[in-house]
Amino acid sequence: MEGPKEPKIITDKNEMREWSRSMRAQGKTIGLVPTMGFLHQGHLSLLEEAHKHTQVFVVSIYVNPGQFSPNEDLSTYPSDFNGDIKKLMSVPGGVDVVFHPHNLYDYGMGSVGNSEGGIERDGVVSCVEDGGLGHETWVRVERLEKGLCGKSRPIFFRGVATIVTKLFNIVEPDVAVFGKKDYQQWRIITRMVRDLDFSIKIIGSDIAREKDGLAMSSRNVHLSPDEREKALSINRSLSKAKAAAGMGQMNSRDLINTVIESVQEAGGKIDYAEIVDQESLKAVEKITSPVVFCIAAWFGKVRLIDNIEISG
Amino acid sequence: MEGPKEPKIITDKNEMREWSRSMRAQGKTIGLVPTMGFLHQGHLSLLEEAHKHTQVFVVSIYVNPGQFSPNEDLSTYPSDFNGDIKKLMSVPGGVDVVFHPHNLYDYGMGSVGNSEGGIERDGVVSCVEDGGLGHETWVRVERLEKGLCGKSRPIFFRGVATIVTKLFNIVEPDVAVFGKKDYQQWRIITRMVRDLDFSIKIIGSDIAREKDGLAMSSRNVHLSPDEREKALSINRSLSKAKAAAGMGQMNSRDLINTVIESVQEAGGKIDYAEIVDQESLKAVEKITSPVVFCIAAWFGKVRLIDNIEISG
Repeated sequence: MEGPKEPKIITDKNEMREWSRSMRAQGKTIGLVPTMGFLHQGHLSLLEEAHKHTQVFVVSIYVNPGQFSPNEDLSTYPSDFNGDIKKLMSVPGGVDVVFHPHNLYDYGMGSVGNSEGGIERDGVVSCVEDGGLGHETWVRVERLEKGLCGKSRPIFFRGVATIVTKLFNIVEPDVAVFGKKDYQQWRIITRMVRDLDFSIKIIGSDIAREKDGLAMSSRNVHLSPDEREKALSINRSLSKAKAAAGMGQMNSRDLINTVIESVQEAGGKIDYAEIVDQESLKAVEKITSPVVFCIAAWFGKVRLIDNIEISG
Repeated sequence: MEGPKEPKIITDKNEMREWSRSMRAQGKTIGLVPTMGFLHQGHLSLLEEAHKHTQVFVVSIYVNPGQFSPNEDLSTYPSDFNGDIKKLMSVPGGVDVVFHPHNLYDYGMGSVGNSEGGIERDGVVSCVEDGGLGHETWVRVERLEKGLCGKSRPIFFRGVATIVTKLFNIVEPDVAVFGKKDYQQWRIITRMVRDLDFSIKIIGSDIAREKDGLAMSSRNVHLSPDEREKALSINRSLSKAKAAAGMGQMNSRDLINTVIESVQEAGGKIDYAEIVDQESLKAVEKITSPVVFCIAAWFGKVRLIDNIEISG
């Protein structure tokens, strides 16, 4: 038996592209799983999904400043690069390349990190409206980015779509895998790929859950044992709503109210709870076509998101 | 001697990409010249420029609805496809492919052309904010798109950056050539390519001029003989301004005023006249580094643009 495969670590974007092109020249198809690191089993399940579709695999590990607002905690975002590599080596078949760039918004023009550039002091990328040579190009999926998580994080999906475009142009994958836990993100990337004619197949991978049903998330470690127990109300009430719909309860408002009550009774604070069309993410009043029930709720200081698809 | 080379005409975007990939697999580099058709000598000079850089050549002919406002005349934009092909065949070395898609915003989902889609009745693409499955992804170069032509045409460069992204993802060229007559467009595309990590070299090609100095434009045919004579004031006064700067006259305001007076005396109506940094397109008060003097002016019903680089 072969030992665990150690991935090649690439930090330079040109070297990354050259690697991909050399693989393509050998007739190999390339899979990409973009991450911000601090990997858990949910990320590894994306890689397992990727293994079904392509022959070689790239995992990117890059905390993208472009998707953080100045008031969000970019500087304290957790990381554990060595632990990530070990986890990736544990996946059957492993991963060929870990792409781990230092700064994808530094264009080598001395324009980053000063007042003329696109990066402010705290590392948050901003569009400088009135001067400078910093980063200023943004990809927006203008309708899908607005609802659900986009309401409380207005520049989040602009940052996500832009960094994914950059990663696509650097890695040039045939397939990219995104988790359906971030349902809106997955739909936004899928729409972006269609609208901008990227030749990349986007795979949505099912939510990985703990044994008790909690959706896996880097944030789960911040939950106290008590909060963690209470947070199970999210998945439990979503599952009940799906079962009720299966029994003919098709009124969205009633289903939503039941879920909100359950989560609030458990001590959660609702950010949003919506039943939306799976494709357009538009709210629906009655479930007559495939929908997804999306929820975001706070337990203590931790904001959790989850969702469940209902075929309608 | 070989006769003129007849280009292969491709209308399907997947066929276009397959052609490019087959060329790349043969080790050939690919040049792209994006146009909206109704070609003149200025376009052909872009192709001649492309011939210096790559081995095979694609000219796209596509009138992009995404860059027209509802009040602009998309429906009457001139076209002469057969004439264009003849002109392309006259260029030494010719062109390998003419990419001539029907509609790059139709994603085959029945979502275009109805109220739910991204295309309105008059064919203008709009971002539908509150519904539908139509096109909704836009690339914006947020600072560079604002000044000069962006002032009077606020969605123009959004449409340009988006269609060029689409064409890049379909044709996958190594080099793309843009005319420096559309100076702002060239700078925007160059910045976009940098910011989004496209692996494409952008070439700015010098302005092609008539013998009397008038910058070549599809719009020149709409000028009356009298207007055409008067329009020569644009290039003449720009050249004088450059000469004055070469003699030490470095105050932008003075140079601009002289040009405005000359063009107005000739009967032109100024849209804008600005001296800006060649890279950032920010207005400069004193010429101490490379600048470009950009002007847009109306002669009768025809809006002409022109510019001249001044090394500073």
